[in-house]
Amino acid sequence: MSYQAPLKDMLFAMQELAGLPQVSTLPGFEDHGIDTAQAVLEESAKFCESVVAPLNWEGDKTPSSWKDGVVTTTPGFKEAFRQFAEGGWQGVIHPPEFGGQGFPKLIATPCAEMLHAASLSFALCPMLTDGAIEALLVAGSDELKRKFAAKLISGEWTGTMNLTEPQAGSDLAAVRSRAEPQEDGTYKVFGTKIFITYGEHDMTGNIVHLVLARVPGAPEGVKGISLFVVPKFMVNDDGSLGERNDAWCVSIEHKLGIKASPTAVLQFGDHGGAVGYLVGQENRGLEYMFIMMNAARFAVGMQGIAIADRAYQQAVRFAHDRAQSRDLAGSAGPVAIINHPDVKRMLLTMRAHVEGARALAYVAAAASDMAHHAADDATRIQNQAVYEYLVPVVKGFSTEMSIDMASLGVQVHGGMGYIEETGAAQHYRDARILTIYEGTTAIQANDIVGRKTLRDKGAVAKALCDRIATTEQDLAAHDNADCNAMLVALRQGRQALEETIDFIVANGKSEPKAVYAGAVNYLKLAGVVLCGWQMGRAMMVALDKMDSDPAFFTAKLITARFYAESVLTQAAGLAQSIRLAGSTTNRMPVEMF
Amino acid sequence: MSYQAPLKDMLFAMQELAGLPQVSTLPGFEDHGIDTAQAVLEESAKFCESVVAPLNWEGDKTPSSWKDGVVTTTPGFKEAFRQFAEGGWQGVIHPPEFGGQGFPKLIATPCAEMLHAASLSFALCPMLTDGAIEALLVAGSDELKRKFAAKLISGEWTGTMNLTEPQAGSDLAAVRSRAEPQEDGTYKVFGTKIFITYGEHDMTGNIVHLVLARVPGAPEGVKGISLFVVPKFMVNDDGSLGERNDAWCVSIEHKLGIKASPTAVLQFGDHGGAVGYLVGQENRGLEYMFIMMNAARFAVGMQGIAIADRAYQQAVRFAHDRAQSRDLAGSAGPVAIINHPDVKRMLLTMRAHVEGARALAYVAAAASDMAHHAADDATRIQNQAVYEYLVPVVKGFSTEMSIDMASLGVQVHGGMGYIEETGAAQHYRDARILTIYEGTTAIQANDIVGRKTLRDKGAVAKALCDRIATTEQDLAAHDNADCNAMLVALRQGRQALEETIDFIVANGKSEPKAVYAGAVNYLKLAGVVLCGWQMGRAMMVALDKMDSDPAFFTAKLITARFYAESVLTQAAGLAQSIRLAGSTTNRMPVEMF
Repeated sequence: MSYQAPLKDMLFAMQELAGLPQVSTLPGFEDHGIDTAQAVLEESAKFCESVVAPLNWEGDKTPSSWKDGVVTTTPGFKEAFRQFAEGGWQGVIHPPEFGGQGFPKLIATPCAEMLHAASLSFALCPMLTDGAIEALLVAGSDELKRKFAAKLISGEWTGTMNLTEPQAGSDLAAVRSRAEPQEDGTYKVFGTKIFITYGEHDMTGNIVHLVLARVPGAPEGVKGISLFVVPKFMVNDDGSLGERNDAWCVSIEHKLGIKASPTAVLQFGDHGGAVGYLVGQENRGLEYMFIMMNAARFAVGMQGIAIADRAYQQAVRFAHDRAQSRDLAGSAGPVAIINHPDVKRMLLTMRAHVEGARALAYVAAAASDMAHHAADDATRIQNQAVYEYLVPVVKGFSTEMSIDMASLGVQVHGGMGYIEETGAAQHYRDARILTIYEGTTAIQANDIVGRKTLRDKGAVAKALCDRIATTEQDLAAHDNADCNAMLVALRQGRQALEETIDFIVANGKSEPKAVYAGAVNYLKLAGVVLCGWQMGRAMMVALDKMDSDPAFFTAKLITARFYAESVLTQAAGLAQSIRLAGSTTNRMPVEMF
Repeated sequence: MSYQAPLKDMLFAMQELAGLPQVSTLPGFEDHGIDTAQAVLEESAKFCESVVAPLNWEGDKTPSSWKDGVVTTTPGFKEAFRQFAEGGWQGVIHPPEFGGQGFPKLIATPCAEMLHAASLSFALCPMLTDGAIEALLVAGSDELKRKFAAKLISGEWTGTMNLTEPQAGSDLAAVRSRAEPQEDGTYKVFGTKIFITYGEHDMTGNIVHLVLARVPGAPEGVKGISLFVVPKFMVNDDGSLGERNDAWCVSIEHKLGIKASPTAVLQFGDHGGAVGYLVGQENRGLEYMFIMMNAARFAVGMQGIAIADRAYQQAVRFAHDRAQSRDLAGSAGPVAIINHPDVKRMLLTMRAHVEGARALAYVAAAASDMAHHAADDATRIQNQAVYEYLVPVVKGFSTEMSIDMASLGVQVHGGMGYIEETGAAQHYRDARILTIYEGTTAIQANDIVGRKTLRDKGAVAKALCDRIATTEQDLAAHDNADCNAMLVALRQGRQALEETIDFIVANGKSEPKAVYAGAVNYLKLAGVVLCGWQMGRAMMVALDKMDSDPAFFTAKLITARFYAESVLTQAAGLAQSIRLAGSTTNRMPVEMF
């Protein structure tokens, strides 16, 4: 089997670390405890492992292709998407009133993780569709919800997000696409959008593009952007498809990885104007887009964890199978390379990062559930703040680490890792997009510095540090060699994070360039420490429950301790670097590069 | 221009850090001071920039291809190699008595760096040929030298190194190819070799394979391996080519990168036996192979530096050209992204790593020159020991960092970096082989722990630390803010390295698995600190010479300080991890992965 969903690990993180028991007390989620979670995850695993995962390599060999405006996806994708839709998987997290299953994000998240691990390329289509659904549900009129959202939730159609333009990259202020109001209340949309994931494909009968554009007289910059629905085919009132709309795919990109996922250049309005429907109000498009973007950023973070886990699984299999060189402690002949200390180190590094990042992401998912569904305002507000702080960490840290882990996966394979047929190299290529799309790591880092730390003077960040300090006390109370090792490392890490928050708050206004030059390292530090916090919590659960499943909990224990000793130990250096290197970076004149 | 050889940086590192003035006092090198170096480097730059660099992208698009045993290289490669040979570039480092130019390694090294930067794929052929030449010159008979080495040095033919077999990866003890002695003194060689770089191609009329094989009755393991010359075409006594030998390329690999370089599976002796000539004595093949391997490992380290520099140059160009988002300090419209703090951080990170690693590699090259050419034994022995300690660092550290730097290069490009036509992704793919071939990073790390640290109880390593401490004194004497910042970071780093050496020496025998589990981090730590040492030295030169060239030396100064603050700051965490994580790694049972 090329991918096996780590159900036990997932359920452990959900139940013991992210607080599934608490989530399943929320109004509407009463039936969504561990038993439901397990049943859903098992079904999801079956589908992802048997239907999607086998397509991953085929998608790399036979990418989606473009001819005369038509995109043909990788053989097998269309049928797999049909099964995905029929299984109701697109609707997992969406409200039952529009045909969804209404599961908590905490249960939807491991399902998404499996799908990403099975095939990043395939999973991108549902992922972007989720974003489109969310934007429509939050800001769309009832008619838009009925006409479009329901068909997206059922998987009958798919959705896209059209932000980027050739001149504008990540800078939405520079968006130039325009939308002219028509007498019938619709708009005519004109412009070119690039890097549109699944902007064109043959898997469903229609595609619902969500497009950012400016109406006449709109303010300049990001405050003058509106959001439109532009369907590929017009939709009649009875839901049947009408004429082809003026939205055309003029090419797709030749990419380093995720080759099965068509990345389209879309041309709107070249033949008279593409019919668009305004979502919500004019000039509020950015706000709506951010709703989608938070979900999409979190989802990309999950892609990082997923690909790192798949790379890990593949490396473990190879390391068991491949015999080479004698054991360091002596052996008659060559041993499986998993016995060699450095191979173990690489595999433990991968495993520790995956477990830490997964736990943190699930904790964030649970916070999102609490933020949306808790009965009292205070709990909702507090959890929303935590979620918003964690989103850039989940996105930025999990994706940065995924590149390193996919690279380690290649390294474990030695020379075979460099041969494409082995498959390890595909993960290395696929993962490389994750730190770029849905906001580069720098954009996540600017977000965590500006909106998430400076704006509240570090309040949310410090509150998280206080919770870490509580975990330290618990570790101290355990008074066990492993807990003590974790305690030392976690304390060191938490203090480094606190000092950094103080530094940022103190200097963010007076020395913004120096502070922002350290933003990515702050993001990384937050990831290292917050994931380490989860590993500390996992360690105590493992010790407490050891007797119930010694093999499982021993592995958890050792992995957590390894994280403490080899990942948390980076925290102090990162903090030092953030404090020191920013002004030096700033000092370098651009012409001297 | 796609690549511009950084002549000024190279000459700076040669003259001010590696000691070219000293090298040019060595017997035979009297004419090889800075003027000669500059002239040679300028010629080399001209050739690499104008002839080879433009082929790099073509090599990726149109890889070498195999059909019916014949390998056709990328269009343009054959002609470029002809010019390479005619320019005498294959002979730069080899002795004049066989047609070489006899330059010091310190001058040959930047020439090689340029060639690698221009095209890793192209440069691999000369690199492997160098290895073959060196083995023949050290261990071959006069006849072999006359018949083969001279033709390799002239670039008329090329050479290969045949170590790896399907079952044997890096483990040479498992080599099974065999060589049967014939009555005429030759051998008949039989076996399969894989991963043979330029094992077959159409650039020259003959290929000289150096092949490891066992003679009948040879001891098991690495002590029973002999080295043979097996030419593709037999060579008549007058130097003309004779019959085709029984050595055939049965396929080439489909690789992640360096696609223009054909990676061959070679079949020896399937049609009666390939004629081979013994190099040196039977059963001493491994020893000879190590001679080639030290040179090849150093060369692969240079590949890392080269590709990191090329990725840096490309990223700088893009960052100057690409306008996006306003300046953090305020601007009317979008500014070139090089003004954004995180882009600067990424570029400085790349630049600092390249400069540090280059300086250390050139220092190592000079040590090799001293080791071979110094008049007195003590100087030779001492420099040989330093060189041997540095080779795994140059190989392991420079290549590991090159992957990270190529990845940063992609990141600077944002979404464009993921599109193959941009070219940034090619460096990311190409660089990925460097930590694998000529001995993986783990093999370099085992070398530095076992042969280079445990064997002499850390004497050479500690002597290097003492030299770093002397540099710290010099920095303290400068009493300047930059020097003080460097001093703090370098001292921290040097102390971390010393503690680690002590830890390794103290525990290498009693806890070998725990120590070797930290080997790669020790290698990395040594790289961080030894390169940082060079940056500290560079900083003082920059301050002392500032007035002579303010722009050049200001950039050197800032880059060095950035290295101190953002790279040397990782040292303490690495040392902690080495000390702590090894036993935890060891504790994880293989079945629990």
